[in-house]
This record gives sequence, C-alpha cells and structure tokens, in this order.
Amino acid sequence: MLTLIKVGGQVIDDEAKLAAFLRDFAALEGPKVLVHGGGKLASALMRSLGIEPRMVDGRRITDADTLRIVTMTYAGWIGKTIAARLNALGCRAVSLCGADAALLPSVRRAPAPIDFGFVGDPIAERIDPRVVLALMEAGLVPVIAPITADAEGQLLNTNADTVAAVLASALARHTRVRLFLAFEKDGVLDAEGNVLPELTVDHTRALVASGVVKDGMRPKLDGGFNALRGGVEEVLIGGSDDVPAVLTGKAQATRLRLAAMPTP
Amino acid sequence: MLTLIKVGGQVIDDEAKLAAFLRDFAALEGPKVLVHGGGKLASALMRSLGIEPRMVDGRRITDADTLRIVTMTYAGWIGKTIAARLNALGCRAVSLCGADAALLPSVRRAPAPIDFGFVGDPIAERIDPRVVLALMEAGLVPVIAPITADAEGQLLNTNADTVAAVLASALARHTRVRLFLAFEKDGVLDAEGNVLPELTVDHTRALVASGVVKDGMRPKLDGGFNALRGGVEEVLIGGSDDVPAVLTGKAQATRLRLAAMPTP
Repeated sequence: MLTLIKVGGQVIDDEAKLAAFLRDFAALEGPKVLVHGGGKLASALMRSLGIEPRMVDGRRITDADTLRIVTMTYAGWIGKTIAARLNALGCRAVSLCGADAALLPSVRRAPAPIDFGFVGDPIAERIDPRVVLALMEAGLVPVIAPITADAEGQLLNTNADTVAAVLASALARHTRVRLFLAFEKDGVLDAEGNVLPELTVDHTRALVASGVVKDGMRPKLDGGFNALRGGVEEVLIGGSDDVPAVLTGKAQATRLRLAAMPTP
Repeated sequence: MLTLIKVGGQVIDDEAKLAAFLRDFAALEGPKVLVHGGGKLASALMRSLGIEPRMVDGRRITDADTLRIVTMTYAGWIGKTIAARLNALGCRAVSLCGADAALLPSVRRAPAPIDFGFVGDPIAERIDPRVVLALMEAGLVPVIAPITADAEGQLLNTNADTVAAVLASALARHTRVRLFLAFEKDGVLDAEGNVLPELTVDHTRALVASGVVKDGMRPKLDGGFNALRGGVEEVLIGGSDDVPAVLTGKAQATRLRLAAMPTP
C-alpha cells in the first residue's frame, strides 16, 4: 500500500511540529509520497517586498509577482529544505512540483466570477504519475510542491489538498493507495469542536450548509471524496503530531466514506 | 553518449538567448542532463529586500538570508520555469538540485581565509547519480540547480560549473559522457580576445599566471579538466546560441585536453 501524506502550511511554519512530522515520515515503511503546502513564508516575503497579499475565500490572488514568490517559496525553499532534511534522516527524498515532467497538467482558472490570476486546477484525467512511479521504483521518495503548469509552460499556483487528492487518484490506477491529509487539528470538527470520527458525503453537505465546514476545509473534503471515487482505499484527515498513530487508528482522526456503513 | 550541458546565468537573464537555448536543448537527441546557473535575479531580489549582495573573487558570500534567496531563486523560480518551458516543448524535464536524493553530498567550505558562509563543495567520491540515472531510464530529463546539502541536511550554495563537472564525472562511471559548458561567450578567449580552439592544462596554467584567465573562468576550467581526468570523453566551453553547431564542431568553441596532441 502506497501512503500519500499531505502536510499543511501551519505545520511547516512550526519548527517543532515540522521536525516531529519529518521524523515520522522518514520512518514510515513502504512506498510513500509527501505533498506539502506553503505556510506563511510567502506572505511574509511579499510584505517584505511591499506587496500586500490578497486572499478571497481563503485562496490567494496570484499576480505575476505573487506567482514568482510562491514558486520560489513552495518549490524552492520549502521543498528543498524538506528534501535535505529527509535525506539527512536517511529518507532519499526528491522534491518536485506539478510542473516537473508535466506531472500535473493544469488549466488556469476562469477569470469570472473572481480573477484569481495565475491559479490552476489540475486536469484529473491527464495526470501522468510516471515520474512519481519511476522515482519510487528507484527507491526514492517523491516530495511534491503545489505548483503546476499549463500546456504552454505557464506556472500556476495550485491548492495543495487538491494536488494530493488528484495525485492519489492517479496513483490508485497503478497501485493500492491511502491518503492522509495531515494538518494542525486532529480532524474535521463538528459544531462543538469535537473530532468527527467519520464523515460521509451527505453529512459533509449538511455541515457545509450550516457553516460548520468552510474555507480551507472545503478543498480537503472535496479532494478527499474525489480520491475515494477515484479508487483511493482510505482517506484520513487528522493531526500531524503522531503519524503512525493516525495511520493505525490509534489516534483520533476523521475517516471519509462515500456513504454511511450499513448498520450490522 | 550522454550530453551534460551547463548553461550560465547571463544566458538565463537574456530571454531571447534562453528561449533559443531551451529550443536547442529540447531538440537534442539522446540522453541529456541540464545544469543551470543563477543569473541576476537573486541579487535583484536581495536588493529589493534591502540586503546588499557581497562577492569575493566572483563568489557570493552566503549568509542565512542569502542562502534562502539563492535556494528560492535557483531551485525554485529558475529550475521550475525551465522545467515548465521544456515540458511545453515536449522535453519531459524534471528540475532537481544537489540536495535531492542526496545527489551531491557537499561540505561547507572552511571559513578561512575567507568565510563564504553557506557555500559548499561537492565530495566527488560520494556523488550518487542514481536519481539522475533512474529519471533518464524512465525517459525523463534531469535539470539540476546548483544547491547542495551536507550530511546534516544543511543547504549550501554551490558553483554551477563545479556541479556540472563533478556530476559529469560521476555519470562517466556508468555511461559515456560529454560535457558542454555553455555561456555568453564563444569560448575561452586569449589575450587578444580570440577564441582558443583548444586548451591544455599547461597552457591554462600560463594563462592564469598572466591574468588572461580569471574569475568565473577558473571553476569552468578546473572543473572541465577534472571531468576529463574523471573519464568524461569531451569537454567543450562555448556559446549557447547554437548548441548543435558546437556539439558537431561546426561552431567555434574551446575544447579542453589534458595534454597537447602529439604532432602527427
């Protein structure tokens, strides 16, 4: 079973959490892939350059300067730092992004109703995971930054949860895959702030309608359910603090299911 | 025969030259690897952030902030831009750096007589080109940025000509290799500014002593001769404008030889 883990930006921003996560990831047995988010570094760098970050619905408006900064930050600094640290831990990591080997062909998002600029959405049926499979066959561990490109070679900023989910589905056509979206919380929370141990499509729809699920949780859930539809065997949303405990069911986390299990 | 081309920063800074070079590189037949330099973007970004770039003997003093910027610029923006553009040209490029898969294990340069900061020198005998070979076996084209790491995972800024030369030697243990150091001039120039068609170790020593060869040409020549000693079959230093012409001997360029050819 291939394990694809996506680690969120708030974990990357917290040195103690990142170090613990990387130790867990390096020690994880079996074929594995890491997708990482961005964190606050891009916004901090933009502010240092006098560019004010603009977000709409939790998504970054990406003009040409912003694209350059997110590419440098996500695919450059964060990707290479993670790769170097994993290699020092004995995990032979290779940091890529969706533009490498045309791994994640994407289209720029339509400019209406909101023009997000250089923001892309992967074309699920055109994803070609050969580079990921070739690296794993050579005993290497792919680490993927959420930057993609269109057919003309235009780089595009892309949601990291979406990248993880579509890549998991593409890999599921070749091998058994489980997907773990790891972040700073212990799972999807209900209105009282408790972790939901299980979440179906119908239940999610109700939580979105009532406003309990919103913002950055939306692409995690949309992507996670699409991954299940795409043949991924298991989708977990949970905390990054103890990866083996989440993967073995010993720590609480939210497991996605397309439909409720029938009552026994 | 594997062709390893290093393209210099001044070519990367010139959009017309870069576009022409990438078209030539994409069209080149046979296994190939691209190593790229940095260009002026890192210094420009540093100045925008109020950091004054410092150079000694043509080499950059790399403090922690500078390291972050060169990693972002070289391995992030330039590497991913080149990869995306090559993929759009049908060349399935994958952009890496020397820290990926511990490709180029390096040591931080000793702080005396000059403390260059986070600057590294690859440990030639520990270079492990498996990731490069695995990518090429999968039909992919490695593109390498001149950032390396030490055994503790510390990223290090590294001379791109040196990276190209040591990587060429490591690959020469597995396959036949030729190395082309492509830049903005047509070759190594003599005191009158004419391209030297051939250059030996002895001749180079004389040109260094007389001050004709200096600065950035030094690591090209040191690296080039080391590559020949390491089993690389052919080392050329020349212009980036017409790659096929240089490789077939139809355009002038400087060919390195360890010793002069005996007179027939």
